[in-house]
This record gives sequence, C-alpha cells and structure tokens, in this order.
Amino acid sequence: MNTIAGGVCAPRGFRAAGVVAHIKNLQTTKKDCALIVSDAPATVAGVFTTNKVKAAPVLWTQGVCVRETARALFVNSGNANACTGTQGLSDAQATAEMVAGALGVPITEVCVCSTGVIGLPLPMDRIANGVSDCLTALSDTGGADAAAAIMTTDKVAKETAVELPLDCGSVRIGAIAKGSGMIAPNMATMLCFITTDAAVRAADLRVLLSECARQSFNCVCVDNDSSTNDTLLCLANGQSGVPLLEPGTAHYAAFARAFHKICVFMAQALVRDGEGATKFIEILVEGANSDREAQLAAKAVAQSQLCKTAFFGQDPNWGRIACAAGYSGADFSPERLSISIEGLEVVRDGTPTPFEEAQAAELMKRHDLHVRVSLGAGPGRAVYWTSDLSHDYVSINADYRS
Amino acid sequence: MNTIAGGVCAPRGFRAAGVVAHIKNLQTTKKDCALIVSDAPATVAGVFTTNKVKAAPVLWTQGVCVRETARALFVNSGNANACTGTQGLSDAQATAEMVAGALGVPITEVCVCSTGVIGLPLPMDRIANGVSDCLTALSDTGGADAAAAIMTTDKVAKETAVELPLDCGSVRIGAIAKGSGMIAPNMATMLCFITTDAAVRAADLRVLLSECARQSFNCVCVDNDSSTNDTLLCLANGQSGVPLLEPGTAHYAAFARAFHKICVFMAQALVRDGEGATKFIEILVEGANSDREAQLAAKAVAQSQLCKTAFFGQDPNWGRIACAAGYSGADFSPERLSISIEGLEVVRDGTPTPFEEAQAAELMKRHDLHVRVSLGAGPGRAVYWTSDLSHDYVSINADYRS
Repeated sequence: MNTIAGGVCAPRGFRAAGVVAHIKNLQTTKKDCALIVSDAPATVAGVFTTNKVKAAPVLWTQGVCVRETARALFVNSGNANACTGTQGLSDAQATAEMVAGALGVPITEVCVCSTGVIGLPLPMDRIANGVSDCLTALSDTGGADAAAAIMTTDKVAKETAVELPLDCGSVRIGAIAKGSGMIAPNMATMLCFITTDAAVRAADLRVLLSECARQSFNCVCVDNDSSTNDTLLCLANGQSGVPLLEPGTAHYAAFARAFHKICVFMAQALVRDGEGATKFIEILVEGANSDREAQLAAKAVAQSQLCKTAFFGQDPNWGRIACAAGYSGADFSPERLSISIEGLEVVRDGTPTPFEEAQAAELMKRHDLHVRVSLGAGPGRAVYWTSDLSHDYVSINADYRS
Repeated sequence: MNTIAGGVCAPRGFRAAGVVAHIKNLQTTKKDCALIVSDAPATVAGVFTTNKVKAAPVLWTQGVCVRETARALFVNSGNANACTGTQGLSDAQATAEMVAGALGVPITEVCVCSTGVIGLPLPMDRIANGVSDCLTALSDTGGADAAAAIMTTDKVAKETAVELPLDCGSVRIGAIAKGSGMIAPNMATMLCFITTDAAVRAADLRVLLSECARQSFNCVCVDNDSSTNDTLLCLANGQSGVPLLEPGTAHYAAFARAFHKICVFMAQALVRDGEGATKFIEILVEGANSDREAQLAAKAVAQSQLCKTAFFGQDPNWGRIACAAGYSGADFSPERLSISIEGLEVVRDGTPTPFEEAQAAELMKRHDLHVRVSLGAGPGRAVYWTSDLSHDYVSINADYRS
C-alpha cells in the first residue's frame, strides 16, 4: 500500500472542486463550497451523528444512503443548516436539485452536507452560485480545493490517498475531512468523505464503514461535543477495473486494512488540528475487565478538562488521570492501578513511583504524548486520541459566531 | 427561618478552628488545617464521591459514618491524601488518632478529610502541628477560620448559617464548603460540612442528606471531573434543646426545608466561585418525558465546553444548546424544541425566532444567566447550575501542582 497524491480525486473516475461562495458572510474569502462527482454511479454508505438534533442535510443524505447509489456530493461550510426547521429541509433538497439538474442525474443520487454556524437559514442565492462555480471548476485535480472548501476553524486541510496493488490491478482510496471543534466520539463526529474506485457492495461498505468508524472516529475527542452535522460518507465507483471485492477474500481483507488505516489517519488528523491544540495525546488503557470498560476509562481520561489542561501546562499531574479512570464507570481495584507517561512509570499498583520531576518535565514537552493506564490483569484494551485544552480553545469558541 | 452569623459554630455546642500548617509547602501562608468539634456526641451522616479511586480519608470517614456518631472533624487542604497506597490509609488513621487522643474521644468518632494535590504523601509532621495548633485555637467563633482553611483554588470562603424558630425553641444549621474545580455532579463533588444542634436520628439524617445532595450538589458542575475526595458530612448534636425531630411532623418538614435551602445555597456558591468563572448560569429543562430525561439534557448543556465558552464570550449561540440537548440521551422531537435565554425566545418548536442581536448581546452581559429549554409537552423538569469556561480556568489548571 502506497500513499499517493490527489486526495478524493486519486481514485479513478472522481472529479472535485472547491470555490468561494461567501456562505458565512460577504467578507469571507475562503473557499466554502465543494463538489465531488463520480463519473459512474457509485455505491454509497454513510455513518451519521447520533445527535437527536440532526441537521437538514444529514436527514437528506441518510435518504440517499438508503438507496445505496450516489453520483455527487455537494458540501458547504460556514452554515450548518441545522435547527432551521422545515425551511432547512427544503433548502437541502433544493441544493441537491440544482446539482442533479446540472449533472443530469437523479436528485436521489446527490448527497449534501453542511458545516458551520447552527440556526441560520442557508443563503440559497449564494449556494446557487457555489453550485454553479463548482460545476465549472470540476476537475480530476480538484481534491485539494475540495479539502480546503470544507474547512471551518481547521488550521490545516486534511486529505490523504493510498493505492493498494492487487494481483489483478490496483484500487485506490482517497479521503478528505474537516473537524477541529465539536469533536466527540459518538459515531462520526465531523465530516469525512472517502472515495474509492474499488467495486464493493453497499451492504459490505456499510459494515466496513461502521467498523472502521468505531476504531477511528469514535476514538477521538477534542471537546466532547457531538455535532448536529457529523457525517462520514464513502463512495465506491468500481472504476479501478478490479473485480468486485468480496468479503472473506484476501483482496477484501487487504482493502479493509487500507480503509481502516485511512480512517485512523483522518481521525488522528482531526485531533492534531483540534481547536487550540498544542499536543496530540494517545491514551492507552490495558488490563481492564473488557474492551468496553477499557474504552470507558480511556474516554474519561481523554475527555477530562483537568487532564487536558494539565497536558497543556506540560504538568505530569497523573493524579487527574487516576481520578478520571476512577469516575469513568470502569470497574477496577485502585490497588492495581498503574500509569506511565511517555514510558515513565508514575504509579504502580496504586502507589506512586518516585520519579525525577526534571525528567518528567522534559518528557511532557514532547508534542506527541503517550499515556498508558493499566487497570489490572484483565484482557480489556482500548485506545483514544485527544488534544489538550488551551487558552486558544477558549478564544476560538468564545467568539465563533462573530 | 433567618440567616445568622457564625457558620459551623452557629449551632450550639460546636467549636472550630483554622490554622496555617504549611501543608502544601513551607512557602504557603494560607490557613490549611481546620478542626470542628462537637461538645456532645453528634449523629453523623455522609455522602461521598462515587469515584472508584477514593482518597484514604474518604475510606476512613465512611467507617465513622457507619458507626453513626462523631465528635470531631479534622480537615487539611493542600494535599488530597489520594492515590497514596497503604501509607495514605495509615496516615489518615494516625491523623484521627492525634485528634482523638487530645480530645479524649474514641478514634472511631473522628472524621478526617483532605483536599489538594493527588498522589503525594501527607506531611505528617506538619499535620501534627496543624492538629495541635487547631486544638489550641478551638473556639465558638472559629467557623470563619475553618471555612478559610479548607479552601484550595477557591477565591471566596463559603459559609452560611440559619436559625429556624419552632414553637418549642429553635434549631440552627451551619455549613462551610470548599470547591471550585474538579466539580461535577456525581453524589457529592466537593467538601461541605454541615453542623446542626437539632436532634435527628442518624438514619433520618442519611436520607435527608442524600435527598438534599441529589437536588443541590448533584445539580452543579464546573468542569465535569468528579474528585477522589468529595465529601458532604453533617453532624447533628442535639444541643438546641428542641426534642428529637421525627420525620412526618411539621417540625421535621420545616427542618428539612431549611436543610435543603442550605445545601442549594452552598452548591450554588461552589459554582459562583468556579475556577475562572465569570458567570453563573442556571439551565432549566422542562417538557421532557421524565425528570430523569430533563436532567440528562440539563446536565449535557451545563457540561458542554462549547456552551460554556459561548457563555464566557457572551455569545447567544443557542445552536450549541440545541446540539447538547440533542446528544444528551434525552428523547425528544427536535420540532418541539424551544429555547430562551434571559427570557428572550431564540427558538420555538424547532424553528429560530428572529431576535435583535443587539438586545441579545445586552442580555448576555448579565452575570447571572437563565437558560430555559423546553423539549416538548412532557412532565419532566430539572435544573442545573454551571459556570462558564474562561481563559482563567485554563491558566489555573495548566499550572496547579507548581
């Protein structure tokens, strides 16, 4: 498996574009509308927010996924089209209609996604301009523009692509994602769009997507808030020429591994670009009674404001890690609790291990931190990825709408 | 019921003290050891952290509460004596022993509590000095010193007392509390000590304390982290001269109301003094299917980092409130969701209500904010109290141990 250029346009038969349509306001000069088109009908599968308050485009695109076939995906940033009532629903449908009309495809094969401020009506005149400009700009090198157009508070665009050589040809997988705040592990908590030229049945794609989300996007958090618009979508258009990938075959296993790797890469990219983040922290919990309990503990540490501010302060304040594990709901004996940070053991079997503060302070300066928590001798194990909580996080979010 | 002076010493037969014992380090000049003594044996009840990792003094004091009688309570701040292994347990017991020996009471009637940094051994020589100085300083006007001595990152001391006139005399209730960070609604999430000269059976006191905690300390959060040391204790010494208060009587009902009011006052005081807090926000959720679901929604909004930073930024960003209600686990139809902030309706039945941004901005400047969320037409209702998330919160917690 090799990393290749091109993002969502790397797989054969996909074109994309990203343009400036002033969605948030007329002063905005960043790209804010993206279009991804598959030249052939693609099987589609999605994982969506579990939030009760689902944005209108989420409801629309869930309908597309039920029909299992998609030709295009239109995305705007700057406005979430969430909490917008019935107007929001007709705006989402009208957006799909514009794209479908221009491409000459059924409206039921056009996914739409939105991300940005909640509760404002979508500016449909500007959306119309965005659709029209995207159609003009569509190209097989447009992946980077699309990646840029879906960003909100993201500092870096997130895209990747891989090529997987198989004996009968090769398949490619490309992905773009956005997400920096309102990130919490609850199904898919951001926007991520994956394209592949593999031929995969929709039912198989759904299973693969859910399974990969569970081990990637559901294992990250920035601020524990699951958004109203979270969407993970995959379009598989079969244009690689490689025959249908069937579960149970070596080819499918290789494809699933590559797919999983793409998801983990993108999920980690969200955390690395977490709002205000100065660190990337991996929380590994072992020795739990079950994977589920390990996950509870890892999630509690990853979400703890006190742990996250300590990471920001480069303070090896492991007591907060023990505290978070303690209230996580995971069952364990505190006398069996052991913790290490960057390989430095700070607690063993519930008793503090003497360590050099200077050495710990030096280790805490690293950008990537690895925290290992052992709850005992059980078989349960889980990993979570989180960012730190900084002054910049507060600044960014105290002043988002303005 | 009248508010009176004296804090925990307001009820008859209680003396207290607070002294400087340099527990955190020799540079500390703040009071950090407190002692509360009941001249007569008092019935005692406690509510403790549900954290799996319980501090040694919590385990000790739970044992005292099982025996239902206490004479004294010694508290140190600056060191939590948590995650300190077997050494921590013997240190807690040794502390109780010093107090018991000096007062000539059974060791099993001495409660001990600690709050501060996790994972460091208790400096027992300084604790011994603290105990000894407290014994010297004990007086019936020592309530304020005790309130000061239990503070950590608290900016203001928290104490209150009331007198409840009854036809056969009067009973008094006094309380002190500390807590500003690591505050989350999970049983009792701070230290709070209540004294009363009422005569109440231990079993009744336990029920009353749990019920009041559920509607007060369990309805507040600062940062969603439940500490290892949370303790709510009440000592009732019967020195008022008023006969035993029996549940089911008018006297008991009046006492329970006063007790509840004290708990709510102290719980709100914790939030008002929340680390870095610039606002006090009440989240009222109505129209839920049940009180339990209302509480889920209120808690999610109260804990949301995004809502809390918006409050700090004085931004009426109600979309984040809708979002938090949506992922809270409460069941509701988004088309029934209504939200108002300081009486200004911003969403009705899932559709944004047009409002003047200038008016909203003016309302958001208030220190106390009231958010009302209606989920529909159900009977469920709950209230939560929370603080905002500010730059100062991050500063305080990035640099706690040093």
